[in-house]
Amino acid sequence: MTQTDKVLELIDADLDKSLDRLFALLRIKSISTDPQYKNDCREAAELCAGLLNEIGFEAKVRETIGHPMVVGHYSGAGEGAPRVLFYGHYDVQPVDPVSLWKRDPFDPEIVEVNGEKQIFGRGTDDDKGQLMTFVEAARAWMAVAGRLPVNVTVLLEGEEESASPSMIPFLSEHKAELQADIALVCDTNMWDRKTPAITTMLRGLLYEEVFIDAASRDLHSGYYGSAARNPIHVLARILDDLHDDDGRVTIPHFYDGVAEVSPEQKAQWATLNFDEKAFLGDIGLKVPAGEKGYSTLEQVWARPTAEVNGIVGGYTGEGAKTVIPAKASAKVSFRLVGDQDPAEISKNFHAFVETRVPADCKVSFANHGGDRAVHQPSDSRWVKQAQRALSQEWGREAVLIAMGGSIPIVTQFKRILGMDSVMVGFGLEDDCIHSPNEKYNLSSFHGGIRSWARILPAIAE
Amino acid sequence: MTQTDKVLELIDADLDKSLDRLFALLRIKSISTDPQYKNDCREAAELCAGLLNEIGFEAKVRETIGHPMVVGHYSGAGEGAPRVLFYGHYDVQPVDPVSLWKRDPFDPEIVEVNGEKQIFGRGTDDDKGQLMTFVEAARAWMAVAGRLPVNVTVLLEGEEESASPSMIPFLSEHKAELQADIALVCDTNMWDRKTPAITTMLRGLLYEEVFIDAASRDLHSGYYGSAARNPIHVLARILDDLHDDDGRVTIPHFYDGVAEVSPEQKAQWATLNFDEKAFLGDIGLKVPAGEKGYSTLEQVWARPTAEVNGIVGGYTGEGAKTVIPAKASAKVSFRLVGDQDPAEISKNFHAFVETRVPADCKVSFANHGGDRAVHQPSDSRWVKQAQRALSQEWGREAVLIAMGGSIPIVTQFKRILGMDSVMVGFGLEDDCIHSPNEKYNLSSFHGGIRSWARILPAIAE
Repeated sequence: MTQTDKVLELIDADLDKSLDRLFALLRIKSISTDPQYKNDCREAAELCAGLLNEIGFEAKVRETIGHPMVVGHYSGAGEGAPRVLFYGHYDVQPVDPVSLWKRDPFDPEIVEVNGEKQIFGRGTDDDKGQLMTFVEAARAWMAVAGRLPVNVTVLLEGEEESASPSMIPFLSEHKAELQADIALVCDTNMWDRKTPAITTMLRGLLYEEVFIDAASRDLHSGYYGSAARNPIHVLARILDDLHDDDGRVTIPHFYDGVAEVSPEQKAQWATLNFDEKAFLGDIGLKVPAGEKGYSTLEQVWARPTAEVNGIVGGYTGEGAKTVIPAKASAKVSFRLVGDQDPAEISKNFHAFVETRVPADCKVSFANHGGDRAVHQPSDSRWVKQAQRALSQEWGREAVLIAMGGSIPIVTQFKRILGMDSVMVGFGLEDDCIHSPNEKYNLSSFHGGIRSWARILPAIAE
Repeated sequence: MTQTDKVLELIDADLDKSLDRLFALLRIKSISTDPQYKNDCREAAELCAGLLNEIGFEAKVRETIGHPMVVGHYSGAGEGAPRVLFYGHYDVQPVDPVSLWKRDPFDPEIVEVNGEKQIFGRGTDDDKGQLMTFVEAARAWMAVAGRLPVNVTVLLEGEEESASPSMIPFLSEHKAELQADIALVCDTNMWDRKTPAITTMLRGLLYEEVFIDAASRDLHSGYYGSAARNPIHVLARILDDLHDDDGRVTIPHFYDGVAEVSPEQKAQWATLNFDEKAFLGDIGLKVPAGEKGYSTLEQVWARPTAEVNGIVGGYTGEGAKTVIPAKASAKVSFRLVGDQDPAEISKNFHAFVETRVPADCKVSFANHGGDRAVHQPSDSRWVKQAQRALSQEWGREAVLIAMGGSIPIVTQFKRILGMDSVMVGFGLEDDCIHSPNEKYNLSSFHGGIRSWARILPAIAE
């Protein structure tokens, strides 16, 4: 029996204890975007640092201007061994609308749905469940072997769901300390319930908020309608204008830097046998709504988007109120691909909006962050080692995929630390991350721990 | 000294007591559209009934399926005297956004603004302040003369701000009891701070709510954008389509029954010297936003509108959330003129929306009530009597005006009770009704009481 086999055996035997530790983290309301949960974020950071210290890391909660980072170092594998930088985040998305949750989002439990055990609660997948797969794998290695196969630095942030304002300064300041041979980022999905995946392409993101102000106060729609400018009408026009009838974004120069998917790439993706019907069917939809002329997979992996993530104006309570509101606002985000430049698009979007603001209205903007798309090498030793370990664990060839979401940290690791990332994660598309009723399959958590337990020695080879 | 003079003298002397009684009513949070204020509405009804009983009415709180009515009868003027039906409402609009109020909306006080005494708080104008002008005038008459010059029935409702669901059944059931020679409705404005007015034209109202449902749950905009239909985009398109570039409403047959303003009417309105600049300037605007080719006065008095009163969808909290929401909704109301039929427009609006709902979306509607526009006779004895009394009180000829808002009760009095209404009110355009920081000038309250004290004997003549 190899040491890896013994580690896997211990992981199986101790799964309940691993779950207890995960649940303690899940119970903390570490919603980073909402200032009222500031103390909860710190509590989550302290808990994570404690877990790392327990298993032999030297870990500390590190101050930033926002929520703290957790950094832990392990150097017991010796100077000849590679060093990996493991990244995850302990903060979570808001839970509104709370009324749509079937259970308390912060009182996790295991529920059985269609014969499948699922860990229910906010953060079970994104990203507390995911990051704990690594921490638990390391714990098992320490318990069995008294050491890890590679040197490890763990970096856990608490601002991933709120545009990571502290990350760039932190990476810049601690460049030397955080240096490693490769970053391992655990915040992505498997290809499906049975097929592990390594993600090598990510869309970028630009997140903007638009505020339209008209009259100096809310108005009675009887006295002032239609003579007074209605900012909701102005906003509706702007948002409607964002797309043409073919689903293309109409902002000037938006598609600068967007390349068509290469025939080779298309051929590789074709082997994945992506089930468009199931992909949309799982969320109650049937027809891809994006750009005409592109497959659903291309729409979500390789095409840029403009999506309104939120809108509010006027009376939104129960019943009727005959008001012309003084203001209205919308949150609009853009998924970016290829070489699209978030700064350029932000500038062009502002100009696009400004030309559509009529007399008697003022427009203002808030920028909630932006990052370019990511393309990671797909044939490095690290990718091949991870791919081999994952394939052994899951009994299927691990596939290389793209992802429509953004993981800005991967861009920053490259830009600031000069480091590539291997993105391995165990989420599933129906995990409802960022939505009510988030879950993480027990098989993801358990298989995820086992996967890292195999990847660590594979990387040491 | 006539009896009327003595009554006016008492009104002046007792103004502080009148204010105390008004303030007690203003402190009650009788927001009819929000179920959590149900008990407050009842409390306001009971207070009103008590006030009427104190001054010699036989008044009772009368049950409905919703908030109760208050009905009080006074018959001491004898069989030969006319009977008037006085109408007001004790319910008020919601107060959100509360953060925009400079003071507690339910803790009324008198503040001095630009040398003018104003009663500050929700309902000070609409309609508690207005209805109390009548009740206080009646109180003064009873105190001085021991009787009122005419027989009076008072009808106060508690659902005016929530589409009056109980009014039609109540009027139908108590037709005989509520019979009178003329209705006096106190829910309108003066022409300006110095010029009293009788309103003879009102726009009608149709209030609709539209709900767009797309995916079965909120989605991560990275994974699913742009393949998944975004209901905010769908809603933005529908709302944008409601108006053409000339500000005209595009719903088919919307303008059926809308007549152009007659040259005579235009000539009469021209004599009012309406100050468009001040009208818009008071609310921080400069340019009339409505249909091209119509003056501001025509836009707000004689032209129909479509206004979005509220919109909500997706994440509206602080910061960023990358969500494609499962649903979005908007409240849309229409001001109606001429012979526009709310039932027809509702039907045509639904069809207009339905043709714009793409695959994978469901649309549903809620109707929050509707009523046709109102045209009251402007040369009846009642109008002339009221006009004479008002002109005496204010030292200026009372003018006949239109109003952009709706007072559905006037339609219902005509349809169900066969009764015309004389609309006399003392509000001012800057009273911020339906908005934060509602106020009622002390001169409106005081002059309003004095006005009714003169109108009552005028009507008896």
